[in-house]
Amino acid sequence: MARVFNFSAGPGTLPEAVLKRAAEELLDYQGSGMSVMEMSHRSSWYERIQQKAESDLREIMNIPSNYKVLFLQGGAHLQFSMVPLNLIKNGKADYLVTGVWGKKAYQEGKKYVNARVVASSEDSKFSYVPKIDKAQLQEDADYFHITTNNTVYGTRLRDKDIVCLDNVPLVADMSSNILSEVYDVSKFGLIYAGSQKNMGPAGVTVVIIREDLVREIDPTVPTMLQYKIHADNSSLYNTPPCYSIYMCGLVFEWIKEQGGVAAIQKINEEKAQLLYDCIDASSLFKGTVEKYDRSLMNVNFVTGSEELDKKFVREAEARGLVNLKGYRTVGGMRASIYNAMPIEGVKALVEFMQDFERLNG
Amino acid sequence: MARVFNFSAGPGTLPEAVLKRAAEELLDYQGSGMSVMEMSHRSSWYERIQQKAESDLREIMNIPSNYKVLFLQGGAHLQFSMVPLNLIKNGKADYLVTGVWGKKAYQEGKKYVNARVVASSEDSKFSYVPKIDKAQLQEDADYFHITTNNTVYGTRLRDKDIVCLDNVPLVADMSSNILSEVYDVSKFGLIYAGSQKNMGPAGVTVVIIREDLVREIDPTVPTMLQYKIHADNSSLYNTPPCYSIYMCGLVFEWIKEQGGVAAIQKINEEKAQLLYDCIDASSLFKGTVEKYDRSLMNVNFVTGSEELDKKFVREAEARGLVNLKGYRTVGGMRASIYNAMPIEGVKALVEFMQDFERLNG
Repeated sequence: MARVFNFSAGPGTLPEAVLKRAAEELLDYQGSGMSVMEMSHRSSWYERIQQKAESDLREIMNIPSNYKVLFLQGGAHLQFSMVPLNLIKNGKADYLVTGVWGKKAYQEGKKYVNARVVASSEDSKFSYVPKIDKAQLQEDADYFHITTNNTVYGTRLRDKDIVCLDNVPLVADMSSNILSEVYDVSKFGLIYAGSQKNMGPAGVTVVIIREDLVREIDPTVPTMLQYKIHADNSSLYNTPPCYSIYMCGLVFEWIKEQGGVAAIQKINEEKAQLLYDCIDASSLFKGTVEKYDRSLMNVNFVTGSEELDKKFVREAEARGLVNLKGYRTVGGMRASIYNAMPIEGVKALVEFMQDFERLNG
Repeated sequence: MARVFNFSAGPGTLPEAVLKRAAEELLDYQGSGMSVMEMSHRSSWYERIQQKAESDLREIMNIPSNYKVLFLQGGAHLQFSMVPLNLIKNGKADYLVTGVWGKKAYQEGKKYVNARVVASSEDSKFSYVPKIDKAQLQEDADYFHITTNNTVYGTRLRDKDIVCLDNVPLVADMSSNILSEVYDVSKFGLIYAGSQKNMGPAGVTVVIIREDLVREIDPTVPTMLQYKIHADNSSLYNTPPCYSIYMCGLVFEWIKEQGGVAAIQKINEEKAQLLYDCIDASSLFKGTVEKYDRSLMNVNFVTGSEELDKKFVREAEARGLVNLKGYRTVGGMRASIYNAMPIEGVKALVEFMQDFERLNG
């Protein structure tokens, strides 16, 4: 069996050690005589799996005890509705629009609250993260929504650069960089993330919500869209996506084994540096975003020629470096180098880029 | 490795052949060099998997071409809201309440439409399926909602006994008996089913909807709750639960190998008969529902003594017959014998029941 280096933006590559363990215990989980896929979600077998996943996530993200951790379904897209439907009070919200997903969150939010764009980099093709100051934010907003990493355009917002108000809940879509670098959870009111980039297979949405934001809401909101229902039932109000949560749990364990998020962040910085150095040293490849705002997870680059870009993607694939085609609105190449991408994969890509430039530059 | 016979009501047992295949290709799907869990949902690899799952499901359920098949998230619970939110026109709906889930569907439906209970067997602990006639149904209802199998109480509604009106869409929750016996899809407006009983691991909801019911609806309904969005995007509006859909696809293939749903139904009737015959011949065990309405999937029985029930469940477990404890509101025992439960499992249970009666009767 030859595993490829998979640069897919999501669902993305998973740690090989995790997949091996999943394969080994697929028919018989730890002597239970059954697969995790076959377990009642009310069984003690499964409850231990979910509790372990939650406690490991709490540990590696350093989640304070006054936060609930929920395992939901529907992806970030459903959160775009759930956030306003659950946090609405005054009916106002601020959005920092730094990419495709932030814009979608804003557009969905508008259906339920008076949503305002604090700043947007759309007119420059989301090639940077706008800097804002506190004076731009509304004191009476129900929340302020940000996206910490922009998968499509390849920018990120570092923890230390987040500007927010003390009394307005900060809401973050962390789908594409959760667990890849350290964020101080205590500054957020709510964090959400789809599983399929840094946590596990698609099908789970992790929501980390400060307890005071978990409240009774308008009862006409669909029951499944009420955080309080899920929080009061420890994410077992209905059958959760058990197997996907189990897989996330294996990934959380793997992160602990790597030394935790701070240790992973160092490796991620090293991996990203290798690629960005290669781009900056190249006369063929160009980056597409402001250097300071470059993502650690999604590295976009172009040759300037659509023909050459296509050739690059095709020849890379023949070398076992797959899913490098850029997003349709950006073009060129995108290398998504999530936690599970080994540094060997990045090195192989850099080597191929250098070879390609020698032959086509 | 010793696999148990798992009588869990859901998530439930899966075919061993399916699990073996999943384990074999977990790290490398058919030479792709990656797991299905790691595949972009926009990749041709994954698209083929989802298309195959859909076409196999269409084949085994004989789904007419004027129906859309959607793979969604959120389980039956989310459908309890989505059905009224999407089908509302006159603002009226009829519900046949035959169990816990039908009642929940009705209660959630009430939030959005003038929901009316056509008949309910709740006052006799849902021990039968009420017979109705057409005159009881509203001609101007937006839909008529039924549950074809009641997981908790162990009753079912046969295809031939369904009463409905030609011009009112029939909506069925088939979560716990989809693919276990033949239903004529063409008589339904909409069928929904959570995956975790007869299709695969938890995390997918299959919705089969007649095209005329897929329509533009109130735009303030959360985008993810609009059937049209998912139908227009072939269930790829957002990242679907890819791996769980792949697993469902393997189960659909397995059903084809067994000869299709009609063949599976025969085996299911044989399996259920073995158990019900044992119960009827016993002076210790008693069934809990009307004989005619007995479910092929969920077989409830009691000894009449809580002590003995507990002993039964405990001793069965020691023999590798697990998850036989009844639902908390019913007590006693429940043997869920979904498609994937081999007849050997049912025979082993019958043998144990006979042994138990000899020693404790």
